[in-house]
Amino acid sequence: MIERELIEYIRELTARDEPAWLKVGLGDDAAVIEPPGGGGGCLVITTDTVVEGVHFEPGTEPRLVGWKAMARGVSDLAAMAARPLCTLAAAHFPPGLSDAAARDLVRALVEAARTLSAPLVGGDTAAGADRLSVAVTAVGTPGPKGAITRAGARPGDAVCVTGELGGAMAGRHLTFRPRVEEALELAERCDVHALIDVSDGLSTDALHVAEAGGVGLALRAADIPVSAAATEMAARDGRQPLQHALADGEDYELLFCLPPVQAERLLETGLGELAVSLIGEVTDGPESCLLMPDGRREPLRAEGWEHRT
Amino acid sequence: MIERELIEYIRELTARDEPAWLKVGLGDDAAVIEPPGGGGGCLVITTDTVVEGVHFEPGTEPRLVGWKAMARGVSDLAAMAARPLCTLAAAHFPPGLSDAAARDLVRALVEAARTLSAPLVGGDTAAGADRLSVAVTAVGTPGPKGAITRAGARPGDAVCVTGELGGAMAGRHLTFRPRVEEALELAERCDVHALIDVSDGLSTDALHVAEAGGVGLALRAADIPVSAAATEMAARDGRQPLQHALADGEDYELLFCLPPVQAERLLETGLGELAVSLIGEVTDGPESCLLMPDGRREPLRAEGWEHRT
Repeated sequence: MIERELIEYIRELTARDEPAWLKVGLGDDAAVIEPPGGGGGCLVITTDTVVEGVHFEPGTEPRLVGWKAMARGVSDLAAMAARPLCTLAAAHFPPGLSDAAARDLVRALVEAARTLSAPLVGGDTAAGADRLSVAVTAVGTPGPKGAITRAGARPGDAVCVTGELGGAMAGRHLTFRPRVEEALELAERCDVHALIDVSDGLSTDALHVAEAGGVGLALRAADIPVSAAATEMAARDGRQPLQHALADGEDYELLFCLPPVQAERLLETGLGELAVSLIGEVTDGPESCLLMPDGRREPLRAEGWEHRT
Repeated sequence: MIERELIEYIRELTARDEPAWLKVGLGDDAAVIEPPGGGGGCLVITTDTVVEGVHFEPGTEPRLVGWKAMARGVSDLAAMAARPLCTLAAAHFPPGLSDAAARDLVRALVEAARTLSAPLVGGDTAAGADRLSVAVTAVGTPGPKGAITRAGARPGDAVCVTGELGGAMAGRHLTFRPRVEEALELAERCDVHALIDVSDGLSTDALHVAEAGGVGLALRAADIPVSAAATEMAARDGRQPLQHALADGEDYELLFCLPPVQAERLLETGLGELAVSLIGEVTDGPESCLLMPDGRREPLRAEGWEHRT
């Protein structure tokens, strides 16, 4: 079963009794809770896991595993325009892992958490798993204008993305910097209607934004920023660089929707040191599409696009 | 490497820069944080994991796996006298798991969380693990007198425990009810100096309380409540029932230290529907011991006791 179906199933199971303190529940990048007796402050919280052989290759340095595990969790906070507060980690160690490797991994987690301004405050370890895995819970506080969800895109909004996309599995997926500061700056400067991090691939995450907002997204292929890694990968595997940018995922860039006039300004200034690309518009939907350079209009699919014959 | 050493290592790594909002950090049953901008409200948060073949047998019903995963997390909240608020879960699915089994597990997690008054608000799933495992993060709010840690036992305090101990692996470890209400009632009625849940075994958890408080615990063997399951197990394996009560773990009962006069009262009233046993006293330490029925004084070891020759 694909995760999407499972999430839908869990949402059905939980929808009927969402408590009043739950401001954003399952299905977004993170939950937003307003703890009773907490003086009205909200917290943003998310759990994410990495598994050897799935999210990193066997033999990957513990330092990189620790970084990726933590950075993914914190990226989900960035995707809500939240400020990181702390993290917890549950590590499953395979029996063959040496004491030195176990120490290296926990040190990597502690140091990554500190670097990401989300110090490790709790954890658990279990020996006996066959593969190394680390589940990270990241906790944050809402940014200047509160948490921003993936829902809320409005027809006529501009669709923007930070940085460059595609080819992250060549290496960047282990070393990326979550776009926390950029998301906070974005929330401060603009009226952002929808925000998500590009973890599943631009096409899939664009469809998440479309579905959550009950809108469509029309992306212009020519304006999608394709990374050098995607171009290199395409040269080797014969696919098109654009396909990598749309489908690869693990980019952890920000995808967001906002009024076009604000988007135009971001094209000039960028966010922090990152370039911002205006890659499309929000439509009434319900279909999302990809506008090709030759004028064709392709339906946007979760794994990129499919040519209609 | 044993988990204790890893935790010590992590504490060394994190001790040098504990932020002001971190009220209780690594090494207790849960962390206590006071989020900035949260109006002074505190949250209690903990992560715990269960792994197939370690915490439950292969083939265990998803319903029981889901319950145990959630109940362990919530028990760590009880161990701080905290009130459950919500949970998040990261599940690692083995490739052979059927869609139906995956659905059963997530439904079990959702339903267990609801029953435990800690609704599931977030999660992640990953396929590709060789064994089923579930990491649960439980979030709570402090009880009537704030969170109670395992540190704080004072010489002269009485040492008490709820319920009966030992033999939980015969079945109870999959179905136990975390002692949330009992912990809240305890915190309301008494001046509890130290509190922990008995997850690693009475001997080990008593030593945790002793170490955290810089004290000793003198436990009276004759007063330790031994479960029927421990007695049955002992009849089969030739060990003593007391040894099971001390060493088995997975009881998830409450172990706590408080003024003797308050302990005496609890012996009469119990907590909720649970009996309370007064099993010893807190001493100056640093050694902890077990007072045997024949008058001998044995050093308390993490796995029960060792006879001195």
